[in-house]
Amino acid sequence: MATSRETFSARLERAIDEKNSCLVVGLDPVPESLPDDVRSLVRSQAGGAAWTAQVALAFGIFLEGVIDVIVDVAVAVKPNTAFFERLGAVGWDVLTRTARYAQRQGLVVITDAKRGDIGHTATAYADALLGNVPDTLGAVSDAVTLHPFTGSDGIQPFVDQARDRGKGLFILVRTSNPSAKDIQDLDCGGRPLYERVADLVRRWGESSIGSDGLSAVGAVVGATAPEEGARIRDLLPSAVFLVPGVGAQGGRPADLAPLFLDGGRGVIVNASRSILFPTRVESEDWKSAVRRSALATRDAIEAVRLPSAG
Amino acid sequence: MATSRETFSARLERAIDEKNSCLVVGLDPVPESLPDDVRSLVRSQAGGAAWTAQVALAFGIFLEGVIDVIVDVAVAVKPNTAFFERLGAVGWDVLTRTARYAQRQGLVVITDAKRGDIGHTATAYADALLGNVPDTLGAVSDAVTLHPFTGSDGIQPFVDQARDRGKGLFILVRTSNPSAKDIQDLDCGGRPLYERVADLVRRWGESSIGSDGLSAVGAVVGATAPEEGARIRDLLPSAVFLVPGVGAQGGRPADLAPLFLDGGRGVIVNASRSILFPTRVESEDWKSAVRRSALATRDAIEAVRLPSAG
Repeated sequence: MATSRETFSARLERAIDEKNSCLVVGLDPVPESLPDDVRSLVRSQAGGAAWTAQVALAFGIFLEGVIDVIVDVAVAVKPNTAFFERLGAVGWDVLTRTARYAQRQGLVVITDAKRGDIGHTATAYADALLGNVPDTLGAVSDAVTLHPFTGSDGIQPFVDQARDRGKGLFILVRTSNPSAKDIQDLDCGGRPLYERVADLVRRWGESSIGSDGLSAVGAVVGATAPEEGARIRDLLPSAVFLVPGVGAQGGRPADLAPLFLDGGRGVIVNASRSILFPTRVESEDWKSAVRRSALATRDAIEAVRLPSAG
Repeated sequence: MATSRETFSARLERAIDEKNSCLVVGLDPVPESLPDDVRSLVRSQAGGAAWTAQVALAFGIFLEGVIDVIVDVAVAVKPNTAFFERLGAVGWDVLTRTARYAQRQGLVVITDAKRGDIGHTATAYADALLGNVPDTLGAVSDAVTLHPFTGSDGIQPFVDQARDRGKGLFILVRTSNPSAKDIQDLDCGGRPLYERVADLVRRWGESSIGSDGLSAVGAVVGATAPEEGARIRDLLPSAVFLVPGVGAQGGRPADLAPLFLDGGRGVIVNASRSILFPTRVESEDWKSAVRRSALATRDAIEAVRLPSAG
């Protein structure tokens, strides 16, 4: 167990060292992709009154199974709230229970909520997602993803909560999707917007840099934009990067090299669908396939993170 | 009841005409501000195991009471998800039940979720917040607020869902908080970023402009930045504006004038805390105070919206 004084980055780096892995498994369940034996729990028609409860039950069983087989391969799980909100209150319940289960297995829980609001609403979100009220997601969440668009007063309540409670933030700087360029690459006085956002992230993180040189305020930097990622690393030498986009979205582990700090520190890499729903070989059961996919992804990333260790 | 063919903007404008009001009441409940007789339902210590359930019960009773006394004064309610997520799954449940209650009273429900994600995750959010699965928020939500930061592919699933189901979107263009300037006012090739976002909102909304000239894709434009709002109106002649920031945040009704389209159309104005938690006069009960505050806000806005009608 982490002590209350350990910073988020220190806890993360300790897990990376212990597991020889910086893999994050994204928990993005969709009913139609569940393995047959789990999906068979859903007997109602989609949209029927009992459907949400049955799918929530199936999600819970599936995700606990996933966690069991990746617990020594990944350092963190990253449930995305969208896939749970789809089921309403029962979805929020299974999200919270899944996060609690993962945390009890020693995994870091990153709530991929991409929230972004202002003033006292931002404070409410910080309580909801990083706070300590029993039965809420905050009590079992170690970090949260955030939009930067509303500026400093939308971020500060999260910075305060994170610093006080040894938790972490990941601010969207450059996302992994094709249309990220619509806004994030706009030219702002000779520099793309994402660099200006990176400047803000550095400022927001200055007050929470620990003795390891890493801040509680990290950045989301997509693996699909390696050149942009390298420039962001120059601007953010103290930020942990959460890197999505490897696997189904087409980002390659080899592209990650410029993102790591010395010693392969400061980066965690997320894969979701390629691990949750891998192509199975012959009569392989789904848990074996999930584990095999997680191991292969972990190994491919480790070969880039610490090439001399190979 | 609206027919399935009626667009979101047509439904909204019909309500505005019928009620002589473009007021939206923001449903942002906080435990410590509840009226005494409602707050007395919360008997557990904050953070105790029963606390979330008791607060959710109190929120439900309080918000139904608010809805009862503003139903003929406001056209819409705008619950912000943050204040409900604070309570975990029971909060999500009371959020959904409150939205259902408001919709049954004939109010438009705008879910202030400020979501923003990519690809198939954006599709999941569009299902969650505008879809038709029973027991989910989408089934009782008429519109949703969104972040533009991830660009087109993060918005398109919502545009499709809104157009197909007669629902609406409000994209953050210029928010009402002091630090909105950190990013939204950055100079992008001689124009502030919020103007570039407005250009995108216009493009995203082109495919859903109805016979009334209004699109399903609207904009969030804070009342605290009237000059910026006027420029955004020039760029977005077909967008409904959702205008927060009146009341507790300091925006004045007089500043709204340049935002309205001809005939006082195309704008809805939100107030939250100043209506939910008004200063009470003498022995006034809380419902009377809420209604009085809503009426005063409605009248102040109407004097600007349709000055000749006064």
